[in-house]
Amino acid sequence: MKFRVNGIARDSIPALDRAVQYGDGLFETVRVRGARPEFLARHLKRLGSGCQRLRFPAIPWASLVQEVTELAGQAPDAVLKIILTRGQGERGYRFDPDQDATRLLTLSPLPEWPADIARHGIRVTICDTRLCVQPVLAGIKHLNRLEQVLARAEWDNPGIHEGLMLDHTDHVIEGTMSNVFLVCEGTLVTPTLTACGVAGIMRSVVLDLARQFDLPTEIRPVTLQQVRNASEIFVCNSLIGIWPVRVIDGLADYPIGPLTPALADALISYRDSDEGNWYPS
Amino acid sequence: MKFRVNGIARDSIPALDRAVQYGDGLFETVRVRGARPEFLARHLKRLGSGCQRLRFPAIPWASLVQEVTELAGQAPDAVLKIILTRGQGERGYRFDPDQDATRLLTLSPLPEWPADIARHGIRVTICDTRLCVQPVLAGIKHLNRLEQVLARAEWDNPGIHEGLMLDHTDHVIEGTMSNVFLVCEGTLVTPTLTACGVAGIMRSVVLDLARQFDLPTEIRPVTLQQVRNASEIFVCNSLIGIWPVRVIDGLADYPIGPLTPALADALISYRDSDEGNWYPS
Repeated sequence: MKFRVNGIARDSIPALDRAVQYGDGLFETVRVRGARPEFLARHLKRLGSGCQRLRFPAIPWASLVQEVTELAGQAPDAVLKIILTRGQGERGYRFDPDQDATRLLTLSPLPEWPADIARHGIRVTICDTRLCVQPVLAGIKHLNRLEQVLARAEWDNPGIHEGLMLDHTDHVIEGTMSNVFLVCEGTLVTPTLTACGVAGIMRSVVLDLARQFDLPTEIRPVTLQQVRNASEIFVCNSLIGIWPVRVIDGLADYPIGPLTPALADALISYRDSDEGNWYPS
Repeated sequence: MKFRVNGIARDSIPALDRAVQYGDGLFETVRVRGARPEFLARHLKRLGSGCQRLRFPAIPWASLVQEVTELAGQAPDAVLKIILTRGQGERGYRFDPDQDATRLLTLSPLPEWPADIARHGIRVTICDTRLCVQPVLAGIKHLNRLEQVLARAEWDNPGIHEGLMLDHTDHVIEGTMSNVFLVCEGTLVTPTLTACGVAGIMRSVVLDLARQFDLPTEIRPVTLQQVRNASEIFVCNSLIGIWPVRVIDGLADYPIGPLTPALADALISYRDSDEGNWYPS
C-alpha cells in the first residue's frame, strides 16, 4: 500500500484530526484502471458537493488532482481512496472555518472477487440494521459509517456478496457498499436518496447510460414488494461495476438479463471512451 | 497536550485505523480533578456497553485503567479523552472480530468558561439540525458525530453556550454537548434516549442524586411545549457539571432555582465523597 498526506508519503495522521475525533470528513473510492483514476471528474464533483454540505473550507483542487494522478500512476489496477478531513481542531464540536482540510490518499490492491460473479450474479441478504433518516447528510459520502459497519457484520457467509439496507419505513435504500437498481415493467428504477444513502458515482454513470439507451428511468421510493416483483435487479459501485442479483434471501430469485448485461456491456464501452475516461489534467 | 496510543507517547494514529476510515469507535470525555479521573467507573461502564453494542473485541481494561490513571496524574485539573477504535483494518466495512482495539488517550487543558456561568445560567439556542432516529447507536458515545458538528456550526455568538437538538418528530433530545433536564410540576424530567442521543455520565449522576433527595424523576419523551412550560431547566456534562438555563431563544425565559442550585451543591458534595470519587485501582 501507498499513502499520501497532503502530498507527502506518510501512513499516519495526527490524533487530533477531526476524522479521528468525530468522523468529520468525506471520502471517495476510485477505481484505478490503466494507471488512471476512473471517473475522477465525477468523484471530484461529489466531493465538492460534500464539502459544501459540511461547510468545509476551500479545497486546493489542483493539488489534490496532481496527487491523485501521481499516485494512480504507480499501479495499473488498484483502489485509490481519497479522504478529506476537516483537519486538526481544538477540543469540541465547534470548528475553525479557516482550518485547512487534510488530504489523505491510499492506494491499495483491488479486492479479489470470484471471476464469474459479474456474469452469473450474486446472492444478497436483507440487513436488520436500518439507515436513519438524516437529510443533511443524505447523498454525500461522509466518514460516519457505523451503520454500514454494523450491517456488514450481520453476515459471515462468503457466498453472500452484499446486504440490502432499508430505512425505518421499510423502503429499500441501497446496499452496504453499493447502490441498487431494479427493472419494473421496462423502467429502470433506483431509490430516492434524499433522506439517506450515498449517491454513488456508478449509479450516476448507469443513469446516464440508460438515458443514452432511451431506457425510461425513475428515481423514487422503493418498497420491498416492488423489489420482489422486479424482473431484474443489480447492484453497482465504482469498484465492482455492475453485479446482477440472482437471489435475495427470503424474498425472491431473479433471472439475469436482458437489461443488466446490456448495461454492463455499455459500461465497458463508456469507461473506455474519451468521455468516460475524461479526467481533469 | 499529552497523548498515549496503546500506552505509548505518540500523537498520531495509523491512516488505516477504522476511526479515521469510518468513525468506527467510541469515546469518553473525563474530567480530571485533583489529578484523578472523576467518575471513571461510570465512564468505563458506558464504554463497555458501547463495546458490546458495536461488537468490539475484548478490551484490556486493566491496561486502560493504568494508562488513564497515569496520564491523569500529570495534571491537577484537565480533560482526559479516551478513544477506543476498532484498530487497523483491511479496506471495506467488514471487520476482523479478533483485531485488537486501539486505545488513544489525550490530556488537554480545561476549557475556559466565564466564572459565573454555573450560578447565573446560560443562553441556549434551538438547532435546526435534527438528530436521526437510530436505535442501534442510541445512548452510546460513538465517533460518528457529524450531526453535533453541524449543529454546533449553527451559531457563532459567544453569548450562546449550548444548542438544543430535536429529533424529526420535534421532541427535545439533548444539547450538542450536554444532556438536558427540566422541572415539571416538581418532577425532574429528562428525555428518553432509546432512539437517539448520548446517555451522559453526568446525567446518570444527576438522576442518582435526585433519587437520594426523594425527588420524583421521569425519563420520557419531551416536547418543546413541555420545555416552554418547565419551571426550571438545566444542562449537564462531565466537564461543565450543571449549568442552569436562563433563556432559550425564541421559546422562554426561566428563573434559576430552587432545584437546580440544590442539585449543583449536591453534586459538589457527591463528587468529593468516597462514593463519587471511587475509581478502579
